[in-house]
Amino acid sequence: MTTPLRIGLLGLGTVGGGVVTVLARNGAEIRRRCGREIVIHHAAAKDYDKRIEGLDKIGRVSSDAAAVVADPEVDIVIELIGGYSPARELALQAVANKKHLVTANKALIARHGNEIIAAARRHDVQVAFEAAVGGGIPILKALREGLAANRIAWVAGIINGTGNYILTEMRDKGRDFADALREAQALGYAEADPTLDVEGVDAAHKLAILAALAFGVPLRFDDIHTEGIAAIERQDVAYADELGYRVKHLGIARRAAAGIELRVHPALIPERRLLAKVDGVMNAILVQGNAVGPTLYYGAGAGALPTASAVVADVVDVARALGGAGRQMPPAFPPPLAFPSPASDDTPTLPMEEVETACYLRLQAADRPGVMAEVSAILGERGISIEAILQKPAAEAQAAGGAQDQTPIILLTRPVKERSMNEAIARLEALPSIRGAARRIRVETLGSDE
Amino acid sequence: MTTPLRIGLLGLGTVGGGVVTVLARNGAEIRRRCGREIVIHHAAAKDYDKRIEGLDKIGRVSSDAAAVVADPEVDIVIELIGGYSPARELALQAVANKKHLVTANKALIARHGNEIIAAARRHDVQVAFEAAVGGGIPILKALREGLAANRIAWVAGIINGTGNYILTEMRDKGRDFADALREAQALGYAEADPTLDVEGVDAAHKLAILAALAFGVPLRFDDIHTEGIAAIERQDVAYADELGYRVKHLGIARRAAAGIELRVHPALIPERRLLAKVDGVMNAILVQGNAVGPTLYYGAGAGALPTASAVVADVVDVARALGGAGRQMPPAFPPPLAFPSPASDDTPTLPMEEVETACYLRLQAADRPGVMAEVSAILGERGISIEAILQKPAAEAQAAGGAQDQTPIILLTRPVKERSMNEAIARLEALPSIRGAARRIRVETLGSDE
Repeated sequence: MTTPLRIGLLGLGTVGGGVVTVLARNGAEIRRRCGREIVIHHAAAKDYDKRIEGLDKIGRVSSDAAAVVADPEVDIVIELIGGYSPARELALQAVANKKHLVTANKALIARHGNEIIAAARRHDVQVAFEAAVGGGIPILKALREGLAANRIAWVAGIINGTGNYILTEMRDKGRDFADALREAQALGYAEADPTLDVEGVDAAHKLAILAALAFGVPLRFDDIHTEGIAAIERQDVAYADELGYRVKHLGIARRAAAGIELRVHPALIPERRLLAKVDGVMNAILVQGNAVGPTLYYGAGAGALPTASAVVADVVDVARALGGAGRQMPPAFPPPLAFPSPASDDTPTLPMEEVETACYLRLQAADRPGVMAEVSAILGERGISIEAILQKPAAEAQAAGGAQDQTPIILLTRPVKERSMNEAIARLEALPSIRGAARRIRVETLGSDE
Repeated sequence: MTTPLRIGLLGLGTVGGGVVTVLARNGAEIRRRCGREIVIHHAAAKDYDKRIEGLDKIGRVSSDAAAVVADPEVDIVIELIGGYSPARELALQAVANKKHLVTANKALIARHGNEIIAAARRHDVQVAFEAAVGGGIPILKALREGLAANRIAWVAGIINGTGNYILTEMRDKGRDFADALREAQALGYAEADPTLDVEGVDAAHKLAILAALAFGVPLRFDDIHTEGIAAIERQDVAYADELGYRVKHLGIARRAAAGIELRVHPALIPERRLLAKVDGVMNAILVQGNAVGPTLYYGAGAGALPTASAVVADVVDVARALGGAGRQMPPAFPPPLAFPSPASDDTPTLPMEEVETACYLRLQAADRPGVMAEVSAILGERGISIEAILQKPAAEAQAAGGAQDQTPIILLTRPVKERSMNEAIARLEALPSIRGAARRIRVETLGSDE
């Protein structure tokens, strides 16, 4: 019989509590799967809910994270504190102390992943972070291992559950953004400070990780073009619907001829796509590989137990790789970022101005003749073709919440470079007949064969 | 620099050719991922297409499969011959010769998996068969590793692309079964002898494997209740549509209180479920875990390159586990069937008569009063509650292809034990006012929270 694998757990918040509960509830099943018992030997948390299911099975709880990381009886450290510091210092200390490291901390990996992974490699320990992207969906394992025979063309995902909940509510119930956000907060889906979710920063952290695993490029959080969903109005959601699209907040990493596209923004998706049908707090990631074609991974992107499912799966991976007692060589772990040499592909990030997408454009036009001709001329001068036009009678638009004496013009363009579209928008907004800002939402068809 | 990992390839048909092409096309990317070159050292095939892309990169091609398996320079054997024999003998010989084994052969694993895996364990080599289920979708890896922290409640999948193509055509184009099958054959989706696909045998092979990985029960192909789709009529597809359902051919493995349900049959799925939206030759598997909740995996379930994607991913797993040169201990591979002791759970298979499902029932009734009362009485006596009734005017039913002077009665029942429903159907068919056989299709709601 082998000895138990002993966890040092940092943090007993939502996810930490989930890990405690999953190990308590499924301990027998997990032992049956990995041939070894997994126990929480030592946990550290400043404050925690004393009613967590399984809390009584933890060897020892203290408030001293450094002591957990230094505990000679701990084999593997699970970092669930979140944020950059002291998570980074604790993670580095853990691997320096020859502990394997599992974390759900997307910010930490997106920002300091290269440093932590390099340190782990020096100390012959593993770093795993499946829970950092897509909650309980094993998407990192799929990219790193399941799709390892492919050259990945692109990854596009709904990777923020809060944002998807808000957009789903806006469509299904005709709510506006602020109202749907309040609802998400009331239900506990959104934080009191929802900035990370609705501004797209959380999705950008995850996208940096997805892109590194898909392409072997470095973690490039700072390169990501990031737009949130706060500017989406319910009328845009409704017009998109009318045109046969859903508005979703996507993270997209794509290998284009001139560089790697890295972008987080709202997008119109054709309603027939599976990704368009992923609603509420659920997440889904669509991956296009050159051998397998499109594959999609769907599940709960957040929550205590789903996230703990991914954390504990990482622990099981380590337990299985360690195998029985008496190994003389450190196990050969799969590379955490899918490629053993980080940054083995140094293809630069494509500047956003060079990215080409089709666009949805909503203009508030004075309700008088000739406006459409002016608009068409500005687009035509820049080679921007119009795919579809939706022009609403002023009365109907007002009933839908639009201003008086104005009529919205909704356009779908053919694919166009961001730079040209930016120029066109600036010119359009300068027209006396156009009121206020133009609303631009990119259109993603996600290939023809999903 | 490590030495290349040398493949012995058995079979150069559709999937074998795909493996050759994927390794040729993506060789650089794969080497960059696993830190090691992967080469086809020796291939055996009776006959093959000389135009396979990458054929020139194979070390040696012969027609002698036994020589490949015995080749001392081969590290890993890929079996792509299919069928039971000689695939079984070659596989056993390969592992006896200390070769790792990768196969796409679902029949072989479903029938002889326990024997082959036990032999591989004795010889310290790995057996991998990701391509056997769901083509290029990494569903076995997800069940074995990604969801290892969960107690799995059930797995339900569209795991035969041919059948799904036929059902999709029947719905989208109003075709009947025979017509849609001919189309599938013309397009190369169905074999000249489509029995394995349309009778559900292929899906049952795959379900046996899914159930073993999900629950740790033995491979129990012979226990599976297997029904095909040949009896589905286009009017059933249309009526299902009208009731808000899609007809899909599902493989279902479920842990019920009294045993493990193992069944392959057509089913009505609520149209709002993602699984209901998986069309054409695509596959998808929905897994319900007690921590993660529902997760879904979608992609191409067949085809040369998608299947090769899974085969080569298995090879990469082995290459990564072997790591660099100089290992003194055999690597600790994850258990092929997810649980290190096969049959560590001996919960018996639940007899089909004990399985409880809601049902769709179509009866051809004489067009006269009182029939519905007779039908209701027979169902009521067995405690079968009716959820919905769709009764069509005779004229409309005839226009849709029904017989004259008859009117179809379509019922949706509440969940009921198979035994009771079988009895009720026998009694209904014996009624003078009911013509011909009753059509029964089970209804699967797939949980409330997918």
